[in-house]
Amino acid sequence: MKIEYATTFLPAIEEELRQAILLSNSPNLEEYRNMLAYHLGWEGEGAGPEARGKRVRPIIVLLTCAAAGGEWQHALPAAAAVELVHNFSLIHDDIQDNSPLRRGRPTVWKQWGVAQAINAGDAMFALAHLSLLRLEETSLPGIAIQASRILQLACLHLTEGQFLDLAYEAHGDLSLEAYWQMVGGKTAALLAACTELGALVARASDSHREAFRQFGFSLGMAFQAQDDLLGIWGNAALTGKSAESDLLSGKKSLPVLYGLTQNGAFAKRWTQGPVNPGEIQSLATQLEAEGGLAYTQAAASRMTDQAIQALAEAQPLGEEGQALIALADQLLGRQG
Amino acid sequence: MKIEYATTFLPAIEEELRQAILLSNSPNLEEYRNMLAYHLGWEGEGAGPEARGKRVRPIIVLLTCAAAGGEWQHALPAAAAVELVHNFSLIHDDIQDNSPLRRGRPTVWKQWGVAQAINAGDAMFALAHLSLLRLEETSLPGIAIQASRILQLACLHLTEGQFLDLAYEAHGDLSLEAYWQMVGGKTAALLAACTELGALVARASDSHREAFRQFGFSLGMAFQAQDDLLGIWGNAALTGKSAESDLLSGKKSLPVLYGLTQNGAFAKRWTQGPVNPGEIQSLATQLEAEGGLAYTQAAASRMTDQAIQALAEAQPLGEEGQALIALADQLLGRQG
Repeated sequence: MKIEYATTFLPAIEEELRQAILLSNSPNLEEYRNMLAYHLGWEGEGAGPEARGKRVRPIIVLLTCAAAGGEWQHALPAAAAVELVHNFSLIHDDIQDNSPLRRGRPTVWKQWGVAQAINAGDAMFALAHLSLLRLEETSLPGIAIQASRILQLACLHLTEGQFLDLAYEAHGDLSLEAYWQMVGGKTAALLAACTELGALVARASDSHREAFRQFGFSLGMAFQAQDDLLGIWGNAALTGKSAESDLLSGKKSLPVLYGLTQNGAFAKRWTQGPVNPGEIQSLATQLEAEGGLAYTQAAASRMTDQAIQALAEAQPLGEEGQALIALADQLLGRQG
Repeated sequence: MKIEYATTFLPAIEEELRQAILLSNSPNLEEYRNMLAYHLGWEGEGAGPEARGKRVRPIIVLLTCAAAGGEWQHALPAAAAVELVHNFSLIHDDIQDNSPLRRGRPTVWKQWGVAQAINAGDAMFALAHLSLLRLEETSLPGIAIQASRILQLACLHLTEGQFLDLAYEAHGDLSLEAYWQMVGGKTAALLAACTELGALVARASDSHREAFRQFGFSLGMAFQAQDDLLGIWGNAALTGKSAESDLLSGKKSLPVLYGLTQNGAFAKRWTQGPVNPGEIQSLATQLEAEGGLAYTQAAASRMTDQAIQALAEAQPLGEEGQALIALADQLLGRQG
């Protein structure tokens, strides 16, 4: 992504997020707002850009809006809303996964307890949708209600994906079909909402809006397949940093799920219990021999092609269109 | 409430709720929908009317719509939405309070674990707002977006009230002012949304809609003050069923908070630790002597008067208007 988008967009996004949090402005709620500000990386120990994450989703909303011929400023309420939805889901994910750290800092539940953290997530969920309604001020009548439906459907799909993820951890019987459904809900649905919302605010034609939506969705799917591949065959996973291997953490990612369907030596070893650091290289080789790498590469490649084709159909305009293509390349590891 | 409203409204509400849940219709999600259907009292052991609760909130939406001159059927999406919001908050409350039972049945977290229960609540939150958007089909353009803002603000206030409740349990330093704010968020805000949404769908004038909103809000406040009073001086609390006394459970209700501000014998005993069943009658008498009963009675009476005055200003129409008055009397224990 070109540096100018970071310097133009990011301060505008942060300001819009701050306005959203201030929608809760009653007295006696300083600590309540502190929790939200802490999670968003503005306050508390370790606050700063590192603690905020990359704000990829709101940037995609704004780039899409501009690339679809709109004024990116008009899409700021939607950009803030998707970032708040993303962060609501992170706060709840951290409780569900029992994760003590997020972006190098203690998670909200670690700092304030599970009960308050559940509530902080709920608060961010409500604030996300209130933020979105500010589209009434920046857009034509009828846009805000369409945007609301797009975002709420993405939230519903998030919870569907999360259900599958949690059920899978508990029972371990996820099919390849259910894996794609899970990734579609957990990762791709919100990215699809980002690009669709940007195009909606820009008043793109129905076909262009659908192409932008499809681009966001396929981008999310391709990103996850790519991420699963690197989790086993990436440099960090295969070499010294063995702790980064999905084989060690036991994560049932796409290659592993494929390997299990083959009922070969890989499946036999995997079902025997936790993998040791010393076994990682040989097990990765075994999984590759049984087709796990090729299957995942083919899937990532197919999803990437779909994303690129959808983006071409969307006919993104100008510098922002170029930036959107560059961002997609970056997320899919296609640079350099 | 007259029996005809139960027989007309309740089946329509249940049907609208079922349609809302079916908005999640992807495959592989049977268990996900089972969780929601279980909590709503439709499925699983003990399913039935008892497990569903009284559906007071959606009934208030429909009665208000009719009493404001509208067609109650048009308000069904809003009625389902408030009931889903209420139940989303119950699912999360039960986790936060570590409650094993709800309406005599194991809570969602007891049945499916905390992680899935957090997610089931989130799902119900998203479904509530998707259900609300069906107002686009039953109402004029522009109504759904106004309704969305009303409901999301109520959700925000719910989380503000819940924050104060949880913070109060943890630190115990709630002021009387913060108590009213907590009740305003946890109980009154959603009731205010019920009556405002009913009036909105009926296209009531701004002043009537505001009066209906105020009625719902004051009704919630009065109900809570009344409930707090009965929790110490009600028959069940004072006599044999001592387990029902808020003095025994240690709940810092309105009379207790008032008593603590008096720094008298009551406050001295209360701060020494848990109360025994044998002390309940004498401690209730002490709190009464220090003004706790009179203060709470005055508050309940003031809020009840406000509710009745607001309802009079709203000029409710017809049989449904009478039913709304009767329902308010019933909730405030003013019958017989």
